[in-house]
Amino acid sequence: MDDAQRLRKFLQDFVAVEGPKILVHGGGKLATKLGERLGIPSKYSEGRRITDAATLELVTMVYGGLINKQIVAQLQASGCNAIGLTGADGNSMQAVQRPVGEIDFGFVGDVVADGVNTHMIQTLLAAGMTPVLAPLTHDGKGSLLNTNADTIAQEVARALASEQAVRLVFCFDKPGVMDAKLEPELLLSVIDRSTFASLRAQGVITDGMVPKLSNAFVALDAGVQEIIIGQAEVLPSLILGKAGTRIQ
Amino acid sequence: MDDAQRLRKFLQDFVAVEGPKILVHGGGKLATKLGERLGIPSKYSEGRRITDAATLELVTMVYGGLINKQIVAQLQASGCNAIGLTGADGNSMQAVQRPVGEIDFGFVGDVVADGVNTHMIQTLLAAGMTPVLAPLTHDGKGSLLNTNADTIAQEVARALASEQAVRLVFCFDKPGVMDAKLEPELLLSVIDRSTFASLRAQGVITDGMVPKLSNAFVALDAGVQEIIIGQAEVLPSLILGKAGTRIQ
Repeated sequence: MDDAQRLRKFLQDFVAVEGPKILVHGGGKLATKLGERLGIPSKYSEGRRITDAATLELVTMVYGGLINKQIVAQLQASGCNAIGLTGADGNSMQAVQRPVGEIDFGFVGDVVADGVNTHMIQTLLAAGMTPVLAPLTHDGKGSLLNTNADTIAQEVARALASEQAVRLVFCFDKPGVMDAKLEPELLLSVIDRSTFASLRAQGVITDGMVPKLSNAFVALDAGVQEIIIGQAEVLPSLILGKAGTRIQ
Repeated sequence: MDDAQRLRKFLQDFVAVEGPKILVHGGGKLATKLGERLGIPSKYSEGRRITDAATLELVTMVYGGLINKQIVAQLQASGCNAIGLTGADGNSMQAVQRPVGEIDFGFVGDVVADGVNTHMIQTLLAAGMTPVLAPLTHDGKGSLLNTNADTIAQEVARALASEQAVRLVFCFDKPGVMDAKLEPELLLSVIDRSTFASLRAQGVITDGMVPKLSNAFVALDAGVQEIIIGQAEVLPSLILGKAGTRIQ
């Protein structure tokens, strides 16, 4: 999504998706780039950004401002009545700052139980608006918190799944979950929990795919009807079930 | 509003204001500071920021992200169900890029006729939310535009005034419109158009106060019931008519 041309194409595909819909975006690469220009180094632990006070300001600017508003403006230009939200906006997503354990993640938030304000989101959807969610939550005490975009997608999907049928599509830069033992790699068109456990144990599924799939199975358990992981470029095919990996 | 302590006090006073309400904020000083760190120099003409592509990204981050979301998070902490918006969000404020005349202001937007989406704003107010408006509009073609905060306040106030009674309060760092001929300066508790014209001709009212008052008289002509200019620190007194300058 860092490439303006590809983002534009993706947003056009998103606009064409029928029915009420919600877009959740990230923005880590742009935050890292701007951080370099501002002398705010990016630090990670287990793939998660450690968020000190300066980093929180950085991601608030990049996620809540630059990326969110550019996406919203482009969607508006395509006739999609988008509205950008952080978790603070309309109290849409409340979280608690992650307790300091071995690692102090700083201003990183974990969504609390019932932290997704489905009433507010449904109000916007009913008014014909399309929420565009930045990966930021708030603690209800005045502070924003940094929350992983995949986690936000999962939390929102399962909160809404108790009220209506929900399809959750994770878009990234690969065709889906790949079996890397094979040469060339092969797309797994379906994955279930036992396959995931076995491939993870074999080291075939690693890195960023592990939390993505963990999030997906949490959503599945919570009743999300359909979960797909695949390439952003082929969003229409993902939705038709003609591409990507289906979680079951 | 650059001072965190004073901002917190102001927001508490704002929360205490009864009835449906809307907050419009600026952020020029913070944008200038961040611009210096990023090597994006601030250029002005007639007190208005010239907004090239880099500056548009800067103000989108600072106005739409950092300041807007910090205000929203703080209001939420005080029990006010705030929701931050740029003009792109829910198509709340549409503008047209200012035509190039003697000066090319770049990505500066002038709100178009019927550009304020009162239906959308009323939907949020009816749902118990308090819109917090960043000084950014959009052109409906995919671009955000930089629009003066006083102008946004005036445009929104007069759009809503056709549907209900509206009180418009401009908050800044002085007690109101001052008669600078006197020593010490004296607060004008009331100002009408002829007094404004005469004081302006005498050079008593100058600089930033001129567009502020021009905006105020536009709003008055459009039927805004009550317009007050005064010091942010005494918001409750401004609303009670015990401080500031009343436009009539």
